[in-house]
Amino acid sequence: MDKKDIMSYETVELDEQENAVIILDQTKLPNEIKFLHLKNQEDMWQAIYLLQVRGAPAIGVFAAFALYLIAKDIHADTWETFYDSFHKAKEYLNSSRPTAVNLSWALNRMEKVAIENKNKPIPEMKALLLAESKKIKAEDISMCRRIGENGLTLIKDGDGILTHCNAGQLATSKYGTALAPIHLGIERGMNFRVFCDETRPLLQGARLSAFELMMDGVDTTVICDNMASQVMKNGWVNVVFVGCDRVAANGDVCNKIGTSGVAILAKHYGIPFYVLGSTSTIDMSIKSGEEIIIEQRPPEEVTDMWYKQRMVPQGVKVYNPAFDVVDHELITGIVTEYGIARPPYTESLKAIFLKHYL
Amino acid sequence: MDKKDIMSYETVELDEQENAVIILDQTKLPNEIKFLHLKNQEDMWQAIYLLQVRGAPAIGVFAAFALYLIAKDIHADTWETFYDSFHKAKEYLNSSRPTAVNLSWALNRMEKVAIENKNKPIPEMKALLLAESKKIKAEDISMCRRIGENGLTLIKDGDGILTHCNAGQLATSKYGTALAPIHLGIERGMNFRVFCDETRPLLQGARLSAFELMMDGVDTTVICDNMASQVMKNGWVNVVFVGCDRVAANGDVCNKIGTSGVAILAKHYGIPFYVLGSTSTIDMSIKSGEEIIIEQRPPEEVTDMWYKQRMVPQGVKVYNPAFDVVDHELITGIVTEYGIARPPYTESLKAIFLKHYL
Repeated sequence: MDKKDIMSYETVELDEQENAVIILDQTKLPNEIKFLHLKNQEDMWQAIYLLQVRGAPAIGVFAAFALYLIAKDIHADTWETFYDSFHKAKEYLNSSRPTAVNLSWALNRMEKVAIENKNKPIPEMKALLLAESKKIKAEDISMCRRIGENGLTLIKDGDGILTHCNAGQLATSKYGTALAPIHLGIERGMNFRVFCDETRPLLQGARLSAFELMMDGVDTTVICDNMASQVMKNGWVNVVFVGCDRVAANGDVCNKIGTSGVAILAKHYGIPFYVLGSTSTIDMSIKSGEEIIIEQRPPEEVTDMWYKQRMVPQGVKVYNPAFDVVDHELITGIVTEYGIARPPYTESLKAIFLKHYL
Repeated sequence: MDKKDIMSYETVELDEQENAVIILDQTKLPNEIKFLHLKNQEDMWQAIYLLQVRGAPAIGVFAAFALYLIAKDIHADTWETFYDSFHKAKEYLNSSRPTAVNLSWALNRMEKVAIENKNKPIPEMKALLLAESKKIKAEDISMCRRIGENGLTLIKDGDGILTHCNAGQLATSKYGTALAPIHLGIERGMNFRVFCDETRPLLQGARLSAFELMMDGVDTTVICDNMASQVMKNGWVNVVFVGCDRVAANGDVCNKIGTSGVAILAKHYGIPFYVLGSTSTIDMSIKSGEEIIIEQRPPEEVTDMWYKQRMVPQGVKVYNPAFDVVDHELITGIVTEYGIARPPYTESLKAIFLKHYL
């Protein structure tokens, strides 16, 4: 594959002729570039659950396209009959990843369109659902670009950046969130040295971040998660950029398991720690991270490594939380499409919401 | 296999009839119990380099037996001729793992016997070398037991303990160092809940610590390295016990990569962090950890996981340090066979050396 190929890929794409959502199967990277054409709701649910599509913004776009295609297929004479099937499909898709706020956020946007247009003819309402799903994607691209612009003010040419998991182009429609400043900077001729935590158990850092950064020509180094301390001690890291799955009103951040550890290390070594994400990830209805229920995933992800080779004695217990919560006191700033929120987050996040959402 | 089998295994054993050092091949655990019978120096060197035998004390015992067997095979009429071959073999074995101070410590003990008995007949000197190698093993067992006794004063029945890598029975002749208090406590009817960091890249925690603890009936949970923060946050960890490959005079500790990160997390969460090891691991000739050169190992350990499946894009850089250094300020105490050294270590470690070595 060459750089041009991958850069022209779309992470999530709607094919209206084929009635399919097309995704790059991220469980196959970096060894295989395989596209999935998903047409029925069971496969769509699985795609989210199995992390074939992953990353909060990409999941949102995917879910919107998926719900549109399901809605398109509903044959009903009345809105009530339509809505009954529509709502069931929405709840079903929403059950695939309980921690991902973007999933319910995108699905709720779609549902709102269905409800607000209940008096319109059903074909017209379906067209509005299509428009809404496309809008969600277009907004995602624009949003990532703005996050990138804001993040770019925090780094300079030649900086060392450490990232965890993949909050990159592969996690969104374009640019990514945590990696958006890097992709934008590269477009402008800058260079960075990026360290990717491999991010056990599913290796999103080693497989995905390293892949998309390499394809973009970035000086990329993969490390095991437990090497981040040494890399920071070596003085190689100017800043840490991570994404977020959910942000509480007080600035606590729920993100991929291991993120809280990286934040604690960064604080110890005096390195700025920034969270980059869209305001859609901020959940003002939860006061702090303590209210976030952390998804537990199957033990085999830990015990059998990636390629199903068991590396743990039979019978041993395994703890496999998908996320952890970074205490807001460890976070230097939260970079959104509307600017950089700084402590105290109870005020700065509220200000963003008052200005842009009310 | 049942518990009795593994508990009667010896990690490192000298077979005088066969002229072999017998080791349990630790690269095959936990899926296969395979013993290696090593007879020539190339295989012995490889056994250390490939981590078939690992753990500072076990490497020391192994190297002493290995050097004895090589010495036994040297045919020489004069001491000078003997010593020429002997010294070359010693240096060769010593080159297999540059960071392991126990390796050179045990080899130097053996060499000292050869030098001090240069006027004795060569067969008699070989018998003294045999006696010295057996003494190194017997001392190791006794030493681990005393470390266990001292460590046991730090925990109570039911405690949660987090450990990194394997400084257990499989890393020594018996009991281990970091895990010695647990094995001793179990012998006495106590119970603990132990969390094993899997310890990428080579998974000594998932494969070895989990294995030996399970066989000893301990409530054992394996986690990915990046989950330690969440486990601590959950309040499940009363104390962290880790081993050490080298301790500097100021209390800085060189141990398996990732140990410094665990220490920083423990400090953040207010959890006591103890290093357990023999005084043979303390190197009073180095003032601080900054003088320790950290061994870099092949990138394939990171990129190809354990079973040679590549999980990282071709061409990406990899950083793979085998060890890191824990700053002495992060360490609650260093548990040795002669008691527990507390800060300031420049004084407490010196006191141990003045009392027991001078």
